[in-house]
Amino acid sequence: MTDFFRDIPEITYAGPDAEGEFAFRHYDPSEMVMGKRLEDHLRFSVAYWHSFAWPGGDPFGGQTFERPWFGDTMEAAKLKADVAFEMFRILGQPFYCFHDYDVRPEGDNFAESAARLDEIGDYLGEKMQATGTRLLWGTANMFSSRRWMSGAATNPDPEVFAYAAASVKACMDVTHRLSGENYVLWGGREGYETLLNTDLGRERAHAGRFLQMVVDYKHKIGFQGAILIEPKPQEPTKHQYDYDVATVYGFLKEFGLEGEVKMNIEQGHAILAGHSFEHELAMARELGIFGSIDMNRNDYQSGWDTDQFPNTVPEVALAYYEVLKAGGFTTGGTNFDAKLRRQSLDPEDLILAHVGGMDVCARGLKAAAAMLEDGTLEAMRSERYAGWDAPAAQKMLDGSLEAAAARVGDEGLDPKPRSGRQERLENIVNRFV
Amino acid sequence: MTDFFRDIPEITYAGPDAEGEFAFRHYDPSEMVMGKRLEDHLRFSVAYWHSFAWPGGDPFGGQTFERPWFGDTMEAAKLKADVAFEMFRILGQPFYCFHDYDVRPEGDNFAESAARLDEIGDYLGEKMQATGTRLLWGTANMFSSRRWMSGAATNPDPEVFAYAAASVKACMDVTHRLSGENYVLWGGREGYETLLNTDLGRERAHAGRFLQMVVDYKHKIGFQGAILIEPKPQEPTKHQYDYDVATVYGFLKEFGLEGEVKMNIEQGHAILAGHSFEHELAMARELGIFGSIDMNRNDYQSGWDTDQFPNTVPEVALAYYEVLKAGGFTTGGTNFDAKLRRQSLDPEDLILAHVGGMDVCARGLKAAAAMLEDGTLEAMRSERYAGWDAPAAQKMLDGSLEAAAARVGDEGLDPKPRSGRQERLENIVNRFV
Amino acid sequence: MTDFFRDIPEITYAGPDAEGEFAFRHYDPSEMVMGKRLEDHLRFSVAYWHSFAWPGGDPFGGQTFERPWFGDTMEAAKLKADVAFEMFRILGQPFYCFHDYDVRPEGDNFAESAARLDEIGDYLGEKMQATGTRLLWGTANMFSSRRWMSGAATNPDPEVFAYAAASVKACMDVTHRLSGENYVLWGGREGYETLLNTDLGRERAHAGRFLQMVVDYKHKIGFQGAILIEPKPQEPTKHQYDYDVATVYGFLKEFGLEGEVKMNIEQGHAILAGHSFEHELAMARELGIFGSIDMNRNDYQSGWDTDQFPNTVPEVALAYYEVLKAGGFTTGGTNFDAKLRRQSLDPEDLILAHVGGMDVCARGLKAAAAMLEDGTLEAMRSERYAGWDAPAAQKMLDGSLEAAAARVGDEGLDPKPRSGRQERLENIVNRFV
Amino acid sequence: MTDFFRDIPEITYAGPDAEGEFAFRHYDPSEMVMGKRLEDHLRFSVAYWHSFAWPGGDPFGGQTFERPWFGDTMEAAKLKADVAFEMFRILGQPFYCFHDYDVRPEGDNFAESAARLDEIGDYLGEKMQATGTRLLWGTANMFSSRRWMSGAATNPDPEVFAYAAASVKACMDVTHRLSGENYVLWGGREGYETLLNTDLGRERAHAGRFLQMVVDYKHKIGFQGAILIEPKPQEPTKHQYDYDVATVYGFLKEFGLEGEVKMNIEQGHAILAGHSFEHELAMARELGIFGSIDMNRNDYQSGWDTDQFPNTVPEVALAYYEVLKAGGFTTGGTNFDAKLRRQSLDPEDLILAHVGGMDVCARGLKAAAAMLEDGTLEAMRSERYAGWDAPAAQKMLDGSLEAAAARVGDEGLDPKPRSGRQERLENIVNRFV
Ligand SMILES: [Co+2]
Ligand SMILES: [Co+2]
Ligand SMILES: [Co+2]
Ligand SMILES: [Co+2]
Ligand SMILES: [Co+2]
Ligand SMILES: [Co+2]
Ligand SMILES: [Co+2]
Ligand SMILES: [Co+2]
Repeated sequence: MTDFFRDIPEITYAGPDAEGEFAFRHYDPSEMVMGKRLEDHLRFSVAYWHSFAWPGGDPFGGQTFERPWFGDTMEAAKLKADVAFEMFRILGQPFYCFHDYDVRPEGDNFAESAARLDEIGDYLGEKMQATGTRLLWGTANMFSSRRWMSGAATNPDPEVFAYAAASVKACMDVTHRLSGENYVLWGGREGYETLLNTDLGRERAHAGRFLQMVVDYKHKIGFQGAILIEPKPQEPTKHQYDYDVATVYGFLKEFGLEGEVKMNIEQGHAILAGHSFEHELAMARELGIFGSIDMNRNDYQSGWDTDQFPNTVPEVALAYYEVLKAGGFTTGGTNFDAKLRRQSLDPEDLILAHVGGMDVCARGLKAAAAMLEDGTLEAMRSERYAGWDAPAAQKMLDGSLEAAAARVGDEGLDPKPRSGRQERLENIVNRFV
Repeated sequence: MTDFFRDIPEITYAGPDAEGEFAFRHYDPSEMVMGKRLEDHLRFSVAYWHSFAWPGGDPFGGQTFERPWFGDTMEAAKLKADVAFEMFRILGQPFYCFHDYDVRPEGDNFAESAARLDEIGDYLGEKMQATGTRLLWGTANMFSSRRWMSGAATNPDPEVFAYAAASVKACMDVTHRLSGENYVLWGGREGYETLLNTDLGRERAHAGRFLQMVVDYKHKIGFQGAILIEPKPQEPTKHQYDYDVATVYGFLKEFGLEGEVKMNIEQGHAILAGHSFEHELAMARELGIFGSIDMNRNDYQSGWDTDQFPNTVPEVALAYYEVLKAGGFTTGGTNFDAKLRRQSLDPEDLILAHVGGMDVCARGLKAAAAMLEDGTLEAMRSERYAGWDAPAAQKMLDGSLEAAAARVGDEGLDPKPRSGRQERLENIVNRFV
Repeated sequence: MTDFFRDIPEITYAGPDAEGEFAFRHYDPSEMVMGKRLEDHLRFSVAYWHSFAWPGGDPFGGQTFERPWFGDTMEAAKLKADVAFEMFRILGQPFYCFHDYDVRPEGDNFAESAARLDEIGDYLGEKMQATGTRLLWGTANMFSSRRWMSGAATNPDPEVFAYAAASVKACMDVTHRLSGENYVLWGGREGYETLLNTDLGRERAHAGRFLQMVVDYKHKIGFQGAILIEPKPQEPTKHQYDYDVATVYGFLKEFGLEGEVKMNIEQGHAILAGHSFEHELAMARELGIFGSIDMNRNDYQSGWDTDQFPNTVPEVALAYYEVLKAGGFTTGGTNFDAKLRRQSLDPEDLILAHVGGMDVCARGLKAAAAMLEDGTLEAMRSERYAGWDAPAAQKMLDGSLEAAAARVGDEGLDPKPRSGRQERLENIVNRFV
Repeated sequence: MTDFFRDIPEITYAGPDAEGEFAFRHYDPSEMVMGKRLEDHLRFSVAYWHSFAWPGGDPFGGQTFERPWFGDTMEAAKLKADVAFEMFRILGQPFYCFHDYDVRPEGDNFAESAARLDEIGDYLGEKMQATGTRLLWGTANMFSSRRWMSGAATNPDPEVFAYAAASVKACMDVTHRLSGENYVLWGGREGYETLLNTDLGRERAHAGRFLQMVVDYKHKIGFQGAILIEPKPQEPTKHQYDYDVATVYGFLKEFGLEGEVKMNIEQGHAILAGHSFEHELAMARELGIFGSIDMNRNDYQSGWDTDQFPNTVPEVALAYYEVLKAGGFTTGGTNFDAKLRRQSLDPEDLILAHVGGMDVCARGLKAAAAMLEDGTLEAMRSERYAGWDAPAAQKMLDGSLEAAAARVGDEGLDPKPRSGRQERLENIVNRFV
């Protein structure tokens, strides 16, 4: 056991009136909500990269965090894993996620990197065995190294495509071995800086083909988890091909993959794409591709990805409302792809940021469940569209433009608008949050 | 002949060193560019609504323009048409576009409105016959009246769907009768203000079904033009279903219409969606759905649709570069969906705004053609992807993830990045603009 | 008594578990908070323009509201006033605000307009007398008429400057007569669309001189209320001179008015300027120019001023936290410069939008007060800056650059960063909202 | 001489039809424009940090550039200087700029760092002597080290304030010794991430006091250059105190420094603040605080500071138009605070990015000069405001609100709007760009 978190107790539920900072006020894993334990609804996951690998840099400043496990040796990697699992224990985290790059130092060549990933995979597996913490998803970091600067699957150099295939294969293998419940692809460099040097058609075709290969490989190895794409409109590139849910849906349709691939939706990326989080969730649900969420917010006044811990219950409630309407998570979960502010230097900050985020999510999910159980919102929605339930309306939908048009004259139609009642609906939401 | 534009001469080409404001400095319709007359490349069109129907209001102020044809009588509508065709003559405009709502006053009921559209259609037809000005596209205004406040095809009230069908049918009929080269749908109210009162799945399904009806009707009446959708992310609603090109592509795929419907892409809407104009054009080209353009810019410092005349040659050149790479316009053209600033009160402003826009477009297209003919940009692009032309690369694309991955070890791959040379490419563009 | 709100009961406090929509769940005017009645903390005000004069238009659509008092007669104006005061009674509103343009139809010339304003002023005065509702502020609409299209005090035409002087004088007079507690200037047209036709120096000088005249006139007539400027960065213009609080502060300093003029800060305008609401409030407080607030939010996904009723308690709480730290309102108050969504057609929508907003504000203010009384946030802030309380630190501040610099060598300084603890502070806030 | 730029020739003017990439097409240093050599108008400067110290990282990726001088030894620092001056020679750059941090490795303590700065200062001085390249400005990097993570002059820890004083003093000393023409302060960390942990009043007071100390020190040492502040609204922090020109003006007035400090205005920062570049320049000119420019653009589709080389002549022309109207540069100049795209790996990219930027600036300045000499734009502006030149108008400005108001009735005023002619003005600009 390391001493990084010494003196920090395990966090347990103590109710809204708890004393002090080291307690859950709202997250009681065993609380039953809509017939399911809260823990099983939320399926919380810690992101290895932000919590254990990120040094605290930003575009104008370098490392602020000084962690005993920083370094590029296997010993450091194992110390990092030790600390990570101590944090999972303290928080009672059921899940975590990682990139290859987070858990092992890069080797001198691919084979060495892969061997290190295997070795650390075993190390993580033992800890998972011992603690019961599970892997929500694995993924390959194909954006940090200069190798990927012009893309991975969409690189102008076919050798990089091969390297990407090897990287994803290695990460899928270790994810499968660790019984990961999903495998995620985030195309941080699959996009462009300028159209002037980009063959858009070729790059998109390669991206589509790569994704087909990934799906085929999943079936070949019998991986039962979901393949997830995480949309993001831009940053680091000027334009990323996985812009938002609707864009990725079109891409999946183009390559015949809409039945094979689902979405990992991040609040911050929704904001960057000009959407609300709930919009992206609702869209994925309606298109049949909802998978999992990255529950980290962006700052509305900043034009880049701030990856902050969630802290606004009303927003989180509207997000979980869409999740619950989608039937809740199956393989997916609530991943905190959230990083501490770079001034939050202390071990306590790392623990308490997660505690706060988990409490906000618990409040949000319980509010969402209460809204659904109350039923007023859904009743008002149904009532608004009730006209469409009439057989004549459905018949019109099945008919021709001329037939629909003819109704206007035949029936003397002059439809009158009815109130959309937005403010009243917002008031109702406010009873629950 | 009206006296609205009295004393304003017909605008003709007088070269870059022309005296005064009333001359084209760059737009010579007969100039041959890449083997085609400039006029036939650009296919300029005036938007009836902004130039003749818009009173100059904004969210904080009312009418500023005082036009003799403002009013809701058929006489006023005919005077408006007279002035419009005088402007087309002055500018030498080959095309124009209109909504039903722009050309006729609304009647007391649908039948009266339709009869008026027919009557004014005849009036326009005679003028077209006499002048040679053609109709680039017709469209139905399904956003201004309170009837449409909650959507047209996506309205919660099926009677509004019927009314929308009748409106579109009437507009398609008159467009067909006037030999319009396209029919456009812009879904300004096909979206939502709040998810709380919206059945996203139902609304999208109705929108898809409506579009199928429109396509069927086109074939039934033998309309040879293209059906075009004009994407816009938001405004007037908070979210519009036709968000951007990639979103509409997914929508078309979902409803099996990707071979039937093309895009009318507006610069301002691209900007609102977080894209460059050239991005949207390139995306449409690669997806096989490029149709036509609305050549009106947005102000980068304003978060709403300013619909200004184009005035930045380097931007316009990059846009036409993508258009030319798409093979140029077939049924499409360059529509100025642009409005005067509301302080630009004079008839001269209306003429000269178009003159300036046409000159900017002429410079842009000629620069784009010169860049293509020069060939350096395309040569550098091809060279960047040349590795993919090798048989081994293509074989890898056809193979499996494992096979691609195996190359890394088998061939000892350690790919080295090469410069993307963005600044050098930008310098080359600057030789032409 | 009109029958517009028939069947709608007076709204009273019924607690969080109230039945139905027509009750306050959180706003109990008589509840004591930090030694003051909640009503006296919040000082709610209704905006006449949005609630009674706005027809529901947006840039792509016209009137949606059909109100019996719409029209341009004095009878309609009085009916409008009758309905307004019925709403104030139903809501128990202590204050309201108006522009000249909202309360009277414009006359054929200035004298007639002024006479109508006087007449309607008397009518309003009687109602105020009878009901106890007070005037939070009056203001002149110098943006709707085409007269103002190029600015009011900043117009290129000096006759418009004179007209603006007359308009403001008339509105100040009636505000004074009705014992208004403030007079507000919002410069919706005091800005520019393009620098190309703008003499920035001249326009700003005229704006400054105009404001000096207004302040002089206030003193001359003995008006005891505050003169307030409402900053907004843009919309309707591309750039408005009263961009944000910091910009207006510089403007006031330039013209020697920083002791005479305070700020009316709107959440939506803060957002458009790239700030949070609490930022603008804190900045005004620190600069000594905090006055009043317009409590209407913008949609973070829309780039224009949506003027929605507040509905997010955590945001509102942070705003009132700054208000309370400023000592609370003196002449200022909480004005709902908020409009119904244009689809919210019913009288019930108008009432319930205000009820919801008032409850959200009540929750926010009570949360803010609880945070202040708890003291943890302020204690942590003080502790962070405690080093500056040392005499040596204050002495350094009073000294020279060289003296401060010398400390580094003399004392061997090598300062170590300490955690900013942002997430822990956010967790603490979440205990109260 | 190093071999980094081997085979790259000195760049000379060869006219618009030059062959190849290694030539100026528009920048002829000796060309006379408005009676002054082009070189003396533009006063180009290279930014040491981006061109020689930046490794190519972004928030999602690390170093891409592999430069022989990367390292933390004094030898590496001298090699870096050698290469820098070779680039200045190749480009014929008259000026450069640096931070302490760019030119010397940080020492183990402040004294060692300062000694290294002195040593490298001597080294640079010899090269300047030998080549004639001058220092446009020096500045202290008080944002990269973790020491500054919570601010420099605004740090909660007074020891950091002292460290900032020592850093600025050392940099002012070396700037003075090298005859720098300006000294710049950019407050990248002088702002906040959250109001919750920030004492806004205290921090601003400390920033103001610090600036006063800097000004006093300037006078004490007899530094003749200008003290410049470079505004930026945000990034790296959520809010920076030097938001934009208008904000800084208010700050200077508050601390009595408006006669002592001028602005270094960057295009990219203007964009982030919601302004056009020309707006910020015009505002600074009108407020009497125009100093110098950082001529590097932002991408309009990216919400962060992209610091790209300028490439759009029409924008650059409008910027220099404001510069020329301000009388041109005195101590200021055109600094390329621009970085290569991180994929632009080659030495050629570094040279040609500057060549392209310099040509764009030359075209822009010549177009601006031509517009001024033509005079149409200024004549139309003057004509628009001509009414104000009348004695009656000036008398009204000097009078009271009542007197101005009285004119409306006395003279029967009913002012009629006149066209703002924006499009015509834009057309005129397009004759020159
Ligand atoms: Co993110
Ligand atoms: Co994520
Ligand atoms: Co538009
Ligand atoms: Co359009
Ligand atoms: Co507003
Ligand atoms: Co307001
Ligand atoms: Co910058
Ligand atoms: Co800069």
